[in-house]
Amino acid sequence: MQNFTFDNKTKIIFGKDKEQVVGEESVVYGKKLLLHYGGGSIKESGLYDTVLNSLKEQNIEVYELGGVKPNPRVSLVREGVTLCKENNIDFILAVGGGSVIDSAKAIAAGAKYDGDVWDFFTGKGAVTECLPIGVVLTIPAAGSESSAGTVITNEDGDYKRATGSLLMRPQFAILNPVLTYTLPSYQTACGVTDMMAHILERYFTNEKNVELTDRLCEATLKTIINNAHTVIEEPTNYDARAEIMWAGTIAHNDLLDTGRIGDWASHDIEHEISGIYDIAHGAGLAIIFPAWMKYVYKHDINRFVQFANRVWDVEIDLNNPEKTALAGIKKLEQFFSSIGMPVSLKEVDINDEHFTEMAKKATERWPLGNFVKLHADDVEKIYQLAR
Amino acid sequence: MQNFTFDNKTKIIFGKDKEQVVGEESVVYGKKLLLHYGGGSIKESGLYDTVLNSLKEQNIEVYELGGVKPNPRVSLVREGVTLCKENNIDFILAVGGGSVIDSAKAIAAGAKYDGDVWDFFTGKGAVTECLPIGVVLTIPAAGSESSAGTVITNEDGDYKRATGSLLMRPQFAILNPVLTYTLPSYQTACGVTDMMAHILERYFTNEKNVELTDRLCEATLKTIINNAHTVIEEPTNYDARAEIMWAGTIAHNDLLDTGRIGDWASHDIEHEISGIYDIAHGAGLAIIFPAWMKYVYKHDINRFVQFANRVWDVEIDLNNPEKTALAGIKKLEQFFSSIGMPVSLKEVDINDEHFTEMAKKATERWPLGNFVKLHADDVEKIYQLAR
Repeated sequence: MQNFTFDNKTKIIFGKDKEQVVGEESVVYGKKLLLHYGGGSIKESGLYDTVLNSLKEQNIEVYELGGVKPNPRVSLVREGVTLCKENNIDFILAVGGGSVIDSAKAIAAGAKYDGDVWDFFTGKGAVTECLPIGVVLTIPAAGSESSAGTVITNEDGDYKRATGSLLMRPQFAILNPVLTYTLPSYQTACGVTDMMAHILERYFTNEKNVELTDRLCEATLKTIINNAHTVIEEPTNYDARAEIMWAGTIAHNDLLDTGRIGDWASHDIEHEISGIYDIAHGAGLAIIFPAWMKYVYKHDINRFVQFANRVWDVEIDLNNPEKTALAGIKKLEQFFSSIGMPVSLKEVDINDEHFTEMAKKATERWPLGNFVKLHADDVEKIYQLAR
Repeated sequence: MQNFTFDNKTKIIFGKDKEQVVGEESVVYGKKLLLHYGGGSIKESGLYDTVLNSLKEQNIEVYELGGVKPNPRVSLVREGVTLCKENNIDFILAVGGGSVIDSAKAIAAGAKYDGDVWDFFTGKGAVTECLPIGVVLTIPAAGSESSAGTVITNEDGDYKRATGSLLMRPQFAILNPVLTYTLPSYQTACGVTDMMAHILERYFTNEKNVELTDRLCEATLKTIINNAHTVIEEPTNYDARAEIMWAGTIAHNDLLDTGRIGDWASHDIEHEISGIYDIAHGAGLAIIFPAWMKYVYKHDINRFVQFANRVWDVEIDLNNPEKTALAGIKKLEQFFSSIGMPVSLKEVDINDEHFTEMAKKATERWPLGNFVKLHADDVEKIYQLAR
């Protein structure tokens, strides 16, 4: 087990009607608030009004910036930064899913920075100060509600890049499973895939003595797998929605990282796809993860055997562990298919046109991954395997 | 799943040599520090010097209060409160195990309270302010290093009582598994039992839809069970010590509480024993928990079947689930025995002399437990089952 620091201060407020306390939770951080959100869905659902009323009850002055899109753009972030600087905003409230929260995090850091906010994503600048952030979560998927990271797309060159700082962790996150009832099944499935991918990135590590985190990963994966079909077939099943929502946070709050170094190649490989093609991040992961597994499993067959056995209940074939390992990968692929995810690039009409370019771009700063280090030619082979 | 708030701000600093950063972690909270500890073991091991040097490097003025005993006494807490008030202490550093940390928490709250500190334990006073606390942990067991609770014994009447407040959660906890190498095997086993009991108290709940927390509980229990014999047989096995140490924190940091109401009767039933007889808390729990289980399992046989199957790999006998449930309880009892714990009061020379009195005292404020509500006569029967 490696040395680690686990430092997650996000207060999780979970359950029915909890969005009604957003005002009292926010006012602790100041009286001038930027309300950040995506499209019209929060207005249609009534959530927008509930939030606004709760904020007004606390006499909070509310500035607004809507319009966050999936794969949030740096242009809108820059707009938010300007808004915050010009109006001396104290606090940013993100109401939405991972894209809105990621956008809010970038704005929060940019608001306290003299240079261009994109600097954080190129390594040119570091986050040393940040406005506090709160979250009302509507899409369980990205885990951004209590993570320290953000992923932003720069339209100028279609770069999708991640950065992180403990300062970016939200102060609180309100998770009401009822708010996820209206998510279309495809988006629900993308969320399920995304949270599973967050765990898998951590699970495939070269660290040998991480039994507790291995088992916590397996526990969370099993819970997601057991509830995924229910939330898709019965969108208003509170208990299943609650399991998925809480699992999505646990998957990415860094608990499952403790004592180990995760891989993260699949996320980077996928980012190139959704950076160019604008497909859902979850769908891209459902395509890339099994392909990545097929490419790397021989590096540590035992770990893939453990995955097959403990997560998918595949019996271990002691005479042929490779068969067990491959059966686990197959189970994952079949599961993604069963919840309506694509598992090949063909299914989403992506051909090999940009493979070389994407592989090059993904690895231009450093080789990807930690479980196995991947260079451009490896990444291109994974795109091929994903066809 | 019930609504919940999960709010744990304790920063965990885990790994080899991490006690060396205690000065820089502490100085954030002020320059006048109370160093609180137990007996001479931290001086013999050199930990005392390491901590003191690290504090002095930050020019922290150190006041000292040693002498904390297992089942920490309110008399020493009162001494600490006076010390803090007279010297305007900013921060309390607990170096030791659960007793030292619990004592530090009571002092921290008492230092900001006008009345007598025992008021917090009788319900007469509430914690509304508290000095910040830091921890260097030497005994993985109580989980007090990131919990919000404390248990103190009042010698005047042999009362052992618990209280809690989010304000009491330590700001940071330093966990170096190497510091636990010198723990005698009996104490190690007591710690293992204590942390398992913390999970079991949460596991046996009437809440039906808590799959994620159930599985996280099972993951942590399995890890403890798998590593317990190793830490006893090979006290300097870093990896096993690390698993046990991290599991002890997870067991009691409230993550495994989310969405459910735990039971906690067994802790209260045990407190009466260790309040009178001064036996180790862990040993008392190894005796009481199986007895409690035998008394209540019929209330929800399926939950005990799940426990037997998922934690102990007992095959489910569908024609006789009761048999499976009892097999799980038996496995737990055998496990406690196998690590050198007593599983009956006889083994620790406790006869039935005080059963009626202890049962009455345990239930004098309210009936115990949530899974099943227990009154004095129930508790007395559990003491009888534990003979």
